[in-house]
Amino acid sequence: MNVENTFTYDFSQYTIVSHVFTLGYAAMAAGLVYFVLTSRNSLPRYRLSSTLSGVVMLSAFLELLVISQRWDSAFRWDGEAFVQAGTLFSNGYRYMNWSIDVPVLLLQMLIVFGVTGAAFRRGWIVFTVAGLGMIYTGYVGQFHEVERSAPFWVWGSISTVFFLVILALVYRTVYGNVGRMPAEVRPLVKAVWWLLLGSWMLYPGAYLMPAIWDSADGVVARQITYTVADIVSKVVYGILLAVIAQKVSKHEHH
Amino acid sequence: MNVENTFTYDFSQYTIVSHVFTLGYAAMAAGLVYFVLTSRNSLPRYRLSSTLSGVVMLSAFLELLVISQRWDSAFRWDGEAFVQAGTLFSNGYRYMNWSIDVPVLLLQMLIVFGVTGAAFRRGWIVFTVAGLGMIYTGYVGQFHEVERSAPFWVWGSISTVFFLVILALVYRTVYGNVGRMPAEVRPLVKAVWWLLLGSWMLYPGAYLMPAIWDSADGVVARQITYTVADIVSKVVYGILLAVIAQKVSKHEHH
Amino acid sequence: MNVENTFTYDFSQYTIVSHVFTLGYAAMAAGLVYFVLTSRNSLPRYRLSSTLSGVVMLSAFLELLVISQRWDSAFRWDGEAFVQAGTLFSNGYRYMNWSIDVPVLLLQMLIVFGVTGAAFRRGWIVFTVAGLGMIYTGYVGQFHEVERSAPFWVWGSISTVFFLVILALVYRTVYGNVGRMPAEVRPLVKAVWWLLLGSWMLYPGAYLMPAIWDSADGVVARQITYTVADIVSKVVYGILLAVIAQKVSKHEHH
Amino acid sequence: MNVENTFTYDFSQYTIVSHVFTLGYAAMAAGLVYFVLTSRNSLPRYRLSSTLSGVVMLSAFLELLVISQRWDSAFRWDGEAFVQAGTLFSNGYRYMNWSIDVPVLLLQMLIVFGVTGAAFRRGWIVFTVAGLGMIYTGYVGQFHEVERSAPFWVWGSISTVFFLVILALVYRTVYGNVGRMPAEVRPLVKAVWWLLLGSWMLYPGAYLMPAIWDSADGVVARQITYTVADIVSKVVYGILLAVIAQKVSKHEHH
Amino acid sequence: MNVENTFTYDFSQYTIVSHVFTLGYAAMAAGLVYFVLTSRNSLPRYRLSSTLSGVVMLSAFLELLVISQRWDSAFRWDGEAFVQAGTLFSNGYRYMNWSIDVPVLLLQMLIVFGVTGAAFRRGWIVFTVAGLGMIYTGYVGQFHEVERSAPFWVWGSISTVFFLVILALVYRTVYGNVGRMPAEVRPLVKAVWWLLLGSWMLYPGAYLMPAIWDSADGVVARQITYTVADIVSKVVYGILLAVIAQKVSKHEHH
Ligand SMILES: CC1=C(/C=C/C(C)=C/C=C/C(C)=C/C=O)C(C)(C)CCC1
Ligand SMILES: CC1=C(/C=C/C(C)=C/C=C/C(C)=C/C=O)C(C)(C)CCC1
Ligand SMILES: CC1=C(/C=C/C(C)=C/C=C/C(C)=C/C=O)C(C)(C)CCC1
Ligand SMILES: CC1=C(/C=C/C(C)=C/C=C/C(C)=C/C=O)C(C)(C)CCC1
Ligand SMILES: CC1=C(/C=C/C(C)=C/C=C/C(C)=C/C=O)C(C)(C)CCC1
Ligand code: NA
Ligand code: NA
Ligand code: NA
Ligand code: NA
Ligand code: NA
Ligand code: NA
Ligand code: NA
Ligand code: NA
Ligand code: NA
Ligand code: NA
Repeated sequence: MNVENTFTYDFSQYTIVSHVFTLGYAAMAAGLVYFVLTSRNSLPRYRLSSTLSGVVMLSAFLELLVISQRWDSAFRWDGEAFVQAGTLFSNGYRYMNWSIDVPVLLLQMLIVFGVTGAAFRRGWIVFTVAGLGMIYTGYVGQFHEVERSAPFWVWGSISTVFFLVILALVYRTVYGNVGRMPAEVRPLVKAVWWLLLGSWMLYPGAYLMPAIWDSADGVVARQITYTVADIVSKVVYGILLAVIAQKVSKHEHH
Repeated sequence: MNVENTFTYDFSQYTIVSHVFTLGYAAMAAGLVYFVLTSRNSLPRYRLSSTLSGVVMLSAFLELLVISQRWDSAFRWDGEAFVQAGTLFSNGYRYMNWSIDVPVLLLQMLIVFGVTGAAFRRGWIVFTVAGLGMIYTGYVGQFHEVERSAPFWVWGSISTVFFLVILALVYRTVYGNVGRMPAEVRPLVKAVWWLLLGSWMLYPGAYLMPAIWDSADGVVARQITYTVADIVSKVVYGILLAVIAQKVSKHEHH
Repeated sequence: MNVENTFTYDFSQYTIVSHVFTLGYAAMAAGLVYFVLTSRNSLPRYRLSSTLSGVVMLSAFLELLVISQRWDSAFRWDGEAFVQAGTLFSNGYRYMNWSIDVPVLLLQMLIVFGVTGAAFRRGWIVFTVAGLGMIYTGYVGQFHEVERSAPFWVWGSISTVFFLVILALVYRTVYGNVGRMPAEVRPLVKAVWWLLLGSWMLYPGAYLMPAIWDSADGVVARQITYTVADIVSKVVYGILLAVIAQKVSKHEHH
Repeated sequence: MNVENTFTYDFSQYTIVSHVFTLGYAAMAAGLVYFVLTSRNSLPRYRLSSTLSGVVMLSAFLELLVISQRWDSAFRWDGEAFVQAGTLFSNGYRYMNWSIDVPVLLLQMLIVFGVTGAAFRRGWIVFTVAGLGMIYTGYVGQFHEVERSAPFWVWGSISTVFFLVILALVYRTVYGNVGRMPAEVRPLVKAVWWLLLGSWMLYPGAYLMPAIWDSADGVVARQITYTVADIVSKVVYGILLAVIAQKVSKHEHH
Repeated sequence: MNVENTFTYDFSQYTIVSHVFTLGYAAMAAGLVYFVLTSRNSLPRYRLSSTLSGVVMLSAFLELLVISQRWDSAFRWDGEAFVQAGTLFSNGYRYMNWSIDVPVLLLQMLIVFGVTGAAFRRGWIVFTVAGLGMIYTGYVGQFHEVERSAPFWVWGSISTVFFLVILALVYRTVYGNVGRMPAEVRPLVKAVWWLLLGSWMLYPGAYLMPAIWDSADGVVARQITYTVADIVSKVVYGILLAVIAQKVSKHEHH
């Protein structure tokens, strides 16, 4: 069960959540147009990054659309508040989406930073295995967020270990390659690290929200957190990588 | 709460609003076809403007579709009038959309007017920060439009300050660059200023509508205002910039 | 109010209307595929006509889809007839669509007939102003079609004046340019005139239908009239212009 | 009225029909991807055939989607059987679709077989006129399929005359052109005749189904018949023509 | 009847199934973007494989979307559990989809492994005939999964015979061609065999699930099995073939 189903909402609370859901999927649709139409601006070897941003955009668009529709049908206005209707809301769709997007987002980084050969294969395997490990353990944990019993904390902790593994490898990937890259893009390459760090940490924050702020307002905060995290970690990140790819391409006499 | 939920509507009032919503999203879909299919008519450096018009079109299409569906489900015909049904209508979706479109629309201008380097970066930051500032303060204010208490006026005023900052920078961008541009496009460049000024001022007008004309007819006027503003500030503006980009491209021996 | 909401329908009447609506939007979707995929068959300067047919197709597709869905939800089978359900049907969506499509359709003609310079600008302005004048005055009139009071006739007459202005300029555009065009396309150019004349006159016919044939069968006739008019004035017209553009392009050594 | 509305269905009967409808529209969507992405594999002059297959795919996709949704909403599970719900099912949507697809399918044949000049124009006119004659007379007849009174048989017979005219011209088109074509494609060209003959004859079979097998199982048989006919006469036929076009193109030193 | 309709579900059971359905169709949509945008990375002769992956993606997307919507509408939350609502769930849509996808997936293998001439034609016929034989016999059998009477076992066994025929030919195709292929791709070619073997065997596993684990948890296991099978046998398989095609193309001096 998710805590979203344990509250009633006033007009502002309910519609703010509804608004940010719309913002979320509209941003993904907008990003899809952007990445598809600009993918030819880089050298062929980097183009795959934009294609993969397109993959991320469409899958996230569908997930956020479903989340948004669930929100609509799980509550109805009874004249005073939004109360439970005939279905239940669920955040689990997000985890399904992450299991597509997390491996793909990390793969994009390897491509744009020009990682190849064994380092590429090893990076890709670690990212995929640790990524899926992080997501599916967290998925199991979030089913216990209402009562917040042991499984909530145990699975959340195991998930966090995987998260740290990912962060460590991302750090090494960024700072191990930044030296090889043209001087003018180095600040952008480092920005990838900070952007990823900042936005990815919002997800465990949203996981913990029921423990921190167990109320209708906490739900609003959680869904805003998720939406900001999604837009930054998928769209802004994708644009940043595309800009790096474009500048590196120009440097290599595109 | 939005004033739309405080009235009942006769057949004409209700269906006129429904019609203009359809006009709104159909115009965005039509624009999407146009911008995607004609984006190759300009030099690569200006092409991004058409791509960004595509981004604006798709995100606005989705937002206006949602608004339109909310209108449908928030009211039902009881044989005499359209009365409230089991959900509430909300204008807040528009603000979400603006927070994608306003920064993008202003970025298009910098691209087409050939602004580069530090001026580009500075313009882009001011436009984005002031744009989001204007929108999110206004968003907070509009929740108070029914009772029109202090927050409605205070947040609206703060929003207006940001708006003036944007207008000032748009003015400087237009008139500071028009001299550099080929003589034949100068009237069009100045038209960008007037078109933007005229259409953007409709949005605060719609914000104020409940204070000016607090009735079902005022709702009709508000939604027509929004739709005209959307079509002019997104579609017509995008076409105008595309025409300028095309003419400048030809001038630079496209 | 529209007369559609004043009748009940037997199985054949109701489903024929439902069928022709489906024919309408499927034809627009089919046309969209055609125009997008064949737009590169002409010289660049004529290509915009196919793009604009694409614009017309998508916006008309959406409008006819809405009309079709309204028909579905406005009536339900009670075991003997289709009777009114919880919403109302409305033809006003068509007028919204025309206000996108009429200016665009007439612009296509100017492009394919090679009109340029001042004649182009003047033609485009007259077509747009008179087109919107015709549509919005008719839009006001059709709200009075049930009682058919003075506004129905007065606004319809004013609309007709605009219509005559358009027809006059179309005639002049066709016959003033046909001489300049390669001999082999001249019959096709003249066909544009007759096709436009024949199909556009169906729209005022549909407007008058409640005055001519005020019954469920009259509704069927009206919706068939609209659909034939839409297919001919948008799809067939667009194909005709595309064929002319292709032949002229070949003639100019494409 | 259609006989589909005169029966109740057990689980297998109802869901088999539901399944084959899904197969139908998914096949059209799949075909759309195929024809759009492979249209550049032939010489420009034959490419239009793939484009037209795209037109057929999208219009049939929409029609079969509507049919499928009607089936869903026209019946509900009452715990024992699927019984009538608040709308009626109708096959008439098919006829609307045919009036787009039949002329287009026959046009594709003329294009791929390289028919040009007067023979092309004559063929195209006969195919279109006889095609629409066949479809609309059959459409009138099928409204009488429940009582199977005179109009059912009379209109069906008139329709058949048009059908025979089409078959005769198809035969002549195939066997009159096969000699001119490269030896290796001749078997494929003859296959077009047999494929068309076999699949098109299923449609009058489905028309007659209420007279042959007037039961819930007959409905299942009818909808399977339609779906097989649709997939063969549109998708397989389109692929066959595309393969012929590709081989002829290679032969002409593509 | 399918066993899914014979149970009630708690929150976790119901939403896990709902989540994996979303994962399923989002993966297909994501794959569609990938295959369409990367199809030009191989030599023309191999490109068809990516196009066919696109065909598979769109048809599977539609099928899984339908399955997902059926799950939503077949159950409703009664405050304690998800119980049956007014429709029935059905797995049969999957079989319809397979009858498009199985022949196409096997055809892709022939293309990428460079099988041509008579071997190609023979392989293609065996794959299609045995594929459809396997699917439609299994389809008949699954209608009897609730009572698990003789037809369930008999049809399942006949289906298995066809399955073995397919596996045998796949084995021969892989190991009969791997020698001809560049050394560096040979491990990938063999991986095709193991990937196909592993993922395809999940389908008969899901067929047998009611006999192995006849409970709500068994339903969850079955739908997870289907989804894993779908993602591996369609998306991962398609990517693997695309990578092989790309490497072979490079080897042949792309
Ligand atoms: C550490 C941690 C988590 C981390 C989640 C993360 C880091 C998700 C990132 C998602 C992204 C980047 C999605 C993009 O599409 C969970 C699973 C919430 C469970 C609690 C502990
Ligand atoms: C001054 C002001 C406002 C200005 C809004 C504007 C100027 C919106 C522009 C939107 C655009 C251009 C959208 C295009 O997609 C608000 C927020 C209504 C609040 C009240 C004060
Ligand atoms: C004269 C007249 C009318 C004319 C309408 C026309 C001529 C519409 C054309 C529409 C087209 C061509 C749409 C294509 O998308 C109205 C407004 C019904 C009102 C009554 C008088
Ligand atoms: C002879 C005959 C008929 C023939 C129908 C045919 C031949 C339809 C072909 C449709 C196709 C090919 C559609 C493809 O999209 C009718 C009208 C059922 C009425 C009864 C007599
Ligand atoms: C052996 C066997 C079966 C095998 C099914 C298979 C092998 C399906 C493969 C599907 C694929 C690959 C779909 C991809 O889109 C059935 C029919 C369940 C019936 C029981 C026996
Ligand atoms: Na609701
Ligand atoms: Na997410
Ligand atoms: Na309503
Ligand atoms: Na807006
Ligand atoms: Na209805
Ligand atoms: Na219309
Ligand atoms: Na139903
Ligand atoms: Na059909
Ligand atoms: Na439900
Ligand atoms: Na499947």
